[in-house]
Amino acid sequence: MGKIYITGIGPGNLENMTLKALEVLSFCDTIIGYKVYIELARHYFKDKEFLSTGMAEEVQRCELCFKKAAEGKNVALVCSGDAGIYGMAELMYQTGTAYPDIPFEIVPGVTAASSGAALLGAPLIQDFAVISLSDLLTPWEKIEKRIIATAYADMVICLYNPSSKKRAGYLKKACQLILKYALPETICGITENIGREGEKWAVYTLKELAEIPVNMFTTVFIGNSQTKVIDGMMVTPRGYKIGR
Amino acid sequence: MGKIYITGIGPGNLENMTLKALEVLSFCDTIIGYKVYIELARHYFKDKEFLSTGMAEEVQRCELCFKKAAEGKNVALVCSGDAGIYGMAELMYQTGTAYPDIPFEIVPGVTAASSGAALLGAPLIQDFAVISLSDLLTPWEKIEKRIIATAYADMVICLYNPSSKKRAGYLKKACQLILKYALPETICGITENIGREGEKWAVYTLKELAEIPVNMFTTVFIGNSQTKVIDGMMVTPRGYKIGR
Repeated sequence: MGKIYITGIGPGNLENMTLKALEVLSFCDTIIGYKVYIELARHYFKDKEFLSTGMAEEVQRCELCFKKAAEGKNVALVCSGDAGIYGMAELMYQTGTAYPDIPFEIVPGVTAASSGAALLGAPLIQDFAVISLSDLLTPWEKIEKRIIATAYADMVICLYNPSSKKRAGYLKKACQLILKYALPETICGITENIGREGEKWAVYTLKELAEIPVNMFTTVFIGNSQTKVIDGMMVTPRGYKIGR
Repeated sequence: MGKIYITGIGPGNLENMTLKALEVLSFCDTIIGYKVYIELARHYFKDKEFLSTGMAEEVQRCELCFKKAAEGKNVALVCSGDAGIYGMAELMYQTGTAYPDIPFEIVPGVTAASSGAALLGAPLIQDFAVISLSDLLTPWEKIEKRIIATAYADMVICLYNPSSKKRAGYLKKACQLILKYALPETICGITENIGREGEKWAVYTLKELAEIPVNMFTTVFIGNSQTKVIDGMMVTPRGYKIGR
């Protein structure tokens, strides 16, 4: 019987992958994942069995892992970023109750909040919230409540999945909610395709951010009331006395 | 002139370090950091100049990096976890304005939220907040407001720095605040010394968590109303239809 490694591969380039993730991908017979992330892995690892399922086929993807492991394969289920942050770790526990004999392990990775922050400057140095704008699995009212609560508490907010074809105006709606508690001049940033072709990042004000086109590869950062721009970068002071 | 790499080394073992962090530590002449993290690095990298400053000497630590780089050394400033989450990235931008010619770069790493979640199960699969209980640089009233807001919005909460010698009762205070919005049976977890000697993790209810002794190497996870225990692990369902 094989083992399954639910593996966060980081933002998408080899250098931000952990040594453990690299070892797992090198060692496993079968690499399974959503098409986009499989392509990233295929670029670096040859002579593997690559299997993918589509966007809404997460349960099938998990079942496929257990089936392959039952056949004796060691399986890497790849997730972008970290496997435990909006990743597949939870669904493997849920579906895994039907396969109690097959062992699996979570291999953590660098999530987009961390890799995006490193590009933008240092936006996450104080307390922050990570909120997904996807309402496929979470009702929009709940997402709205979370945005309002964290903006009210002056926390930095990092938004995952800010847009898709079906959810074109969601970032604007989120910005409008935050604008009830934060100034239009609040410093914000976006990162896109981190560590991949088309990588970009930019710093905006909250008012500007509401009008910026984003996509499913964008991660959005909304500063707190102390966030400022230093040399063009987005920086949230922790509060150290610098004495100059 | 040398370059400075502000490097997140992950939880503390080599396997959860990124390839880039490993490359930076191998390449740099001088490795600077808080004593505890320097010891972790010293374990793996020999023939380097190791320099450390104490707990409250963060500004001096940054100045030391710029001084060494001005002398021509390539410097790695090591942070545990991710350099951009309660790490040194921000202070380097702040102190760096006095050294405009010295280049530096942030190298992201696996933060304790990710590495701890991987040990506990899958607690962070839905929206979550990361809050530090240290009131050295943030007034307690602000921390309290953030805890209340995120508990009210039914977000998973990950607490960093839950305790120190001077702040013995802070986790209990935080739990009492959360108990105003969450049931005493809410599923919680702690992780300690992730990837190092003395690694441990445990799952509790919120009521139990209030009485658990923690220290500066503990990371605390407080579930939302949907978080449950599967095979002894802490799992927050994302909401997929599993169809069984």
